Amino acid sequence: MTVTRNYEREFVRTFFTSPTAVEGEDDSAKMLRSAAQLRGMQAPDTWIPDNEDATAPSMRDEGVENIVEVVAEHGAAFPGEIHPRVVWHRERPTTRYQGFQQMLEIADPDNGAVEHIDGFVIPEVGDIDDWKKADEFFTIIENEHGLEEGSLSMSVIVESGEAELAMGDLRAEMGKPSNNLQRMFMLVDGEVDYTKDMRAMTPTGELPPWPELRHNTSRGASAAGLIAVDGPYDDIRDVAGYHDRMTENHAKGMLGIWSLTPGQVVEANTAPLPPKTGQWLVEVDGDEVELDAVEGKQVYDGDALTLATTDDGTYVLGVGGDEHELAKDELHEELLNLTAYVPSMDDIVDSMEEFEAAKEAGKGAIAMTRSATLVIDGVEVEVSADRMWDEATYQAAQTPIALFQDVYEHRPDQHEELEEMYGADVVDRAMQVGAQ
Amino acid sequence: MTVTRNYEREFVRTFFTSPTAVEGEDDSAKMLRSAAQLRGMQAPDTWIPDNEDATAPSMRDEGVENIVEVVAEHGAAFPGEIHPRVVWHRERPTTRYQGFQQMLEIADPDNGAVEHIDGFVIPEVGDIDDWKKADEFFTIIENEHGLEEGSLSMSVIVESGEAELAMGDLRAEMGKPSNNLQRMFMLVDGEVDYTKDMRAMTPTGELPPWPELRHNTSRGASAAGLIAVDGPYDDIRDVAGYHDRMTENHAKGMLGIWSLTPGQVVEANTAPLPPKTGQWLVEVDGDEVELDAVEGKQVYDGDALTLATTDDGTYVLGVGGDEHELAKDELHEELLNLTAYVPSMDDIVDSMEEFEAAKEAGKGAIAMTRSATLVIDGVEVEVSADRMWDEATYQAAQTPIALFQDVYEHRPDQHEELEEMYGADVVDRAMQVGAQ
Amino acid sequence: MTVTRNYEREFVRTFFTSPTAVEGEDDSAKMLRSAAQLRGMQAPDTWIPDNEDATAPSMRDEGVENIVEVVAEHGAAFPGEIHPRVVWHRERPTTRYQGFQQMLEIADPDNGAVEHIDGFVIPEVGDIDDWKKADEFFTIIENEHGLEEGSLSMSVIVESGEAELAMGDLRAEMGKPSNNLQRMFMLVDGEVDYTKDMRAMTPTGELPPWPELRHNTSRGASAAGLIAVDGPYDDIRDVAGYHDRMTENHAKGMLGIWSLTPGQVVEANTAPLPPKTGQWLVEVDGDEVELDAVEGKQVYDGDALTLATTDDGTYVLGVGGDEHELAKDELHEELLNLTAYVPSMDDIVDSMEEFEAAKEAGKGAIAMTRSATLVIDGVEVEVSADRMWDEATYQAAQTPIALFQDVYEHRPDQHEELEEMYGADVVDRAMQVGAQ
Repeated sequence: MTVTRNYEREFVRTFFTSPTAVEGEDDSAKMLRSAAQLRGMQAPDTWIPDNEDATAPSMRDEGVENIVEVVAEHGAAFPGEIHPRVVWHRERPTTRYQGFQQMLEIADPDNGAVEHIDGFVIPEVGDIDDWKKADEFFTIIENEHGLEEGSLSMSVIVESGEAELAMGDLRAEMGKPSNNLQRMFMLVDGEVDYTKDMRAMTPTGELPPWPELRHNTSRGASAAGLIAVDGPYDDIRDVAGYHDRMTENHAKGMLGIWSLTPGQVVEANTAPLPPKTGQWLVEVDGDEVELDAVEGKQVYDGDALTLATTDDGTYVLGVGGDEHELAKDELHEELLNLTAYVPSMDDIVDSMEEFEAAKEAGKGAIAMTRSATLVIDGVEVEVSADRMWDEATYQAAQTPIALFQDVYEHRPDQHEELEEMYGADVVDRAMQVGAQ
Repeated sequence: MTVTRNYEREFVRTFFTSPTAVEGEDDSAKMLRSAAQLRGMQAPDTWIPDNEDATAPSMRDEGVENIVEVVAEHGAAFPGEIHPRVVWHRERPTTRYQGFQQMLEIADPDNGAVEHIDGFVIPEVGDIDDWKKADEFFTIIENEHGLEEGSLSMSVIVESGEAELAMGDLRAEMGKPSNNLQRMFMLVDGEVDYTKDMRAMTPTGELPPWPELRHNTSRGASAAGLIAVDGPYDDIRDVAGYHDRMTENHAKGMLGIWSLTPGQVVEANTAPLPPKTGQWLVEVDGDEVELDAVEGKQVYDGDALTLATTDDGTYVLGVGGDEHELAKDELHEELLNLTAYVPSMDDIVDSMEEFEAAKEAGKGAIAMTRSATLVIDGVEVEVSADRMWDEATYQAAQTPIALFQDVYEHRPDQHEELEEMYGADVVDRAMQVGAQ
Repeated sequence: MTVTRNYEREFVRTFFTSPTAVEGEDDSAKMLRSAAQLRGMQAPDTWIPDNEDATAPSMRDEGVENIVEVVAEHGAAFPGEIHPRVVWHRERPTTRYQGFQQMLEIADPDNGAVEHIDGFVIPEVGDIDDWKKADEFFTIIENEHGLEEGSLSMSVIVESGEAELAMGDLRAEMGKPSNNLQRMFMLVDGEVDYTKDMRAMTPTGELPPWPELRHNTSRGASAAGLIAVDGPYDDIRDVAGYHDRMTENHAKGMLGIWSLTPGQVVEANTAPLPPKTGQWLVEVDGDEVELDAVEGKQVYDGDALTLATTDDGTYVLGVGGDEHELAKDELHEELLNLTAYVPSMDDIVDSMEEFEAAKEAGKGAIAMTRSATLVIDGVEVEVSADRMWDEATYQAAQTPIALFQDVYEHRPDQHEELEEMYGADVVDRAMQVGAQ
């Protein structure tokens, strides 16, 4: 059986939480109300009215009322999915029962919100048996309220060692007749509580990077047909840091991330999409430098690379202080190793179209050429590289395009911004490729 | 059910091995005898009379006698726990039977040692069924000697791929009525034999770093309520390397480490505790530089950062060779990104007290401010940052304090040194916070 | 029960794929024919006639015929093992049935190839139940063709999250009476399709490094007595990059790697073997520099280290720009920390012989001394370090020797090249050590 996803979105870029009830405000639902009215790149793929950690314990009953009220009013028009987070704890039955009651109330059709609710987020889950307890409550709620069994999706926050291990069991458990775990949707890392559960510590109190957790979450999602989402990035001012984290995550197959502000939502909605324009890079000593595109040439403006010609027609290339005398061929080879190219949306679509045409004509593999004129210390060098594309390369390159298509299909409110970003022509072509 | 630990110590900093019988000495138990009399920071949290690799095969019968004799004499006064290591091998039944016989003899109440023995360490375990074989021997020994079932704890050395995998099964197996695996205490990595079992090799013969093994051990310990301990650090002279390894381990939730000498015990007993005084750091190009506290100011004395003022009131900040002209606000922002603070014990206790008071007053989150005057190239800049503390931050920050409290409770022999290190007042307050 | 390998080779350095049928050539089996005639260091340990991704779908029927013809003709003389790859897909029953038919045909004794076929490689496997489906086809084929049950080995390409997880189940499943998974041989990573399955992406389209996958593959192989092999390294020109990847892999216990060309086969057959001559290294700021052996001295020729003597007999050592005034002892200590030695085959054999003699004489541990005269900026310093060798060190050091012995035993066609490389004496002694 194919791993199929039993929900509409194949990709989730953004997981945006809002406190459900804030004390001391005229309108305790103020934050919910403003979040519900976000549109376009500021609106997340999944919006999480957060009746757990973001809301004070004493305000959570009011939080449930606020969710019901705001979602009933604004849910129909909200462009993303809506997944409230309720309370739960693997070690506290009282908390689990509260979570059940919160879901039961929010999902009551008489309250008018449930038709806009896509699922619930369950924090602090433990081993797979604990996940089944939550799933059983979903099933009871669906039956109690006359909803279709399995219609409410379940997402979990992975913030314990046992939940990390449970992700390895999920695929085998999801098919069993005694549960409805097919309702699973997102696996979301929660590094703050995970750090506490693992009893980890760093000198400055910074969170550890937890690369293995993120790998295991991405792998668990892949094996069970789910979506992997990384936890919150606390330092809201540090946009570059947030981007670095996303780049790391994307290389792990974790394409979604938590967003704490509409500003972070914009960054995280945009980051997994290919750039508008391509970009040449030079990598020296582990540092990447972007080249400046000037009149169609790629100009290096740094200190780590130097280049000069000699009287006898060779070149002297300096890399991180070491100088090498090179013939033209050797220079070309060396620069190929030192440079890399970040393709634009347009480039990716081009390559895919070209490969599709070749396949149509019966070819299994073609060479794609990428060339540029590099300028280092005023010396110009042509660089050109072939890369073989076969079916596997084509398939692997398709991820950003598949994501773009999923976004375009489900987020009409972002069409205008996407067309502004890429131009209508590129958007059109990007929607056509890969359909095979 | 809560993950509970069924033994007294919640934390183990140090795992110190001693050969049980050394050939060619007047007293073959000499090393055991001197280890048994260690006190204070030189005495480990767990002491391992090592009747396996540290002792020649021909000396192991004598080793058993020595353990019995030395523990009977000195065990009552020894300030840490005592866990002899016996022989075992997942692939050799003869070795397993020898291990059983060694434990049977050491645990014989007639020999007078068992009342001071907390458990045994089983090396070279294989998959979970192999762990059960060892557990079954513990159960037989307890019954044979009239000891309470489950009273001897079992720790294992993880030094094979199958044992690494077994740590993922442990939580589910521990509850089963057919075993007494609830006796499990420490999961200890043994990287030398693990490297052999994995058939790994490095050019210089150095051990590979095995970050995934350490993660999986820490996670296995977290999921099953056990304690994770890293393997031996061979290069005894390399104190800085030992510290770096511990810092890495702490970020993985692995708070304990093997110690080969009383000197390493001191380092490893101290490293997980917060420092006496706070420390500002600057991080440039991946290198961390400690700032010097001079008359309450934090002075940078390196080459990677430069700072100058201009005539029009702006600043020129040089970072790793690149100069940026910045307004005061921008400079502040930039320096916040480049600096970090390692809080002292006093700082952590302060923050926790402050948060506890705020919670008492009904607040769910408060901002903690950290400020300093930085001095770079003689130019002074005030830096100040807020960090939001909510319940989760508070809980996560608590790990070093919980460890300190565990140490203080179980190691009266270290009180004097701890009070000398921190001052009696800080120790007092550290014992009060977090009790909620 | 000991983890035993049920096949002849204990180690596989190289996994070399050839397209089985190339369109538009006079002889579509041309690539197979030339691969079948490789000998010596150019011939791989395992040769994979690739009837999957390397061969166009329309050519795969012809590919089966070509495999049969070429293996029947050249198989007896081929010095490595032969493991054709057939088609398979965890999500496509049609593809699985095609794979079955391909194997059934290739293994038909009437075709004369099967006596030289060691097994088959199954790509795109899913969870452990999917592996069992393939295994069942092997069993049916063996029975249908009157071959001994279990005589055809099965290797898999791990290119999905569920296959990665399956490697953790393998050990427990292999013993069950309802399957013949004891036929398992190699676990091979396939990072291109794995990247697609995980939906990972990088800015430049480069493959992510997937360190956790490689660890898990190596661990799965170790736990089940199998062999771990890394996937293809696409950039054929980048020999240094291929070597770096192999060094990383070896430190993970993954000693085999895919080779796409006979040139890569030579590199990958050689890389896991100890070097002919030892090599001193200096490591400064994470960069490793090889020292030049000049008249028995080790000369440093770089900029990161400087050394001068002072009038009062001390030394000034500059490390990455920072100068330290040091007494002779301190200098010695410092240089020991900064240097490392890569032992030659001869060195390793020496150390093992020495340890074996010591063990024979009843000693459990001995100190091995390594010394050198370093020359930095013309200043000579003697450096000498002891390293303790005990049984565990000895066992861990044995991996490259065990690999060498396995190679020497199974690859007579490489004897001449190995003796040229090391000298006949070293080869002889290397074949004697470690037999205990």
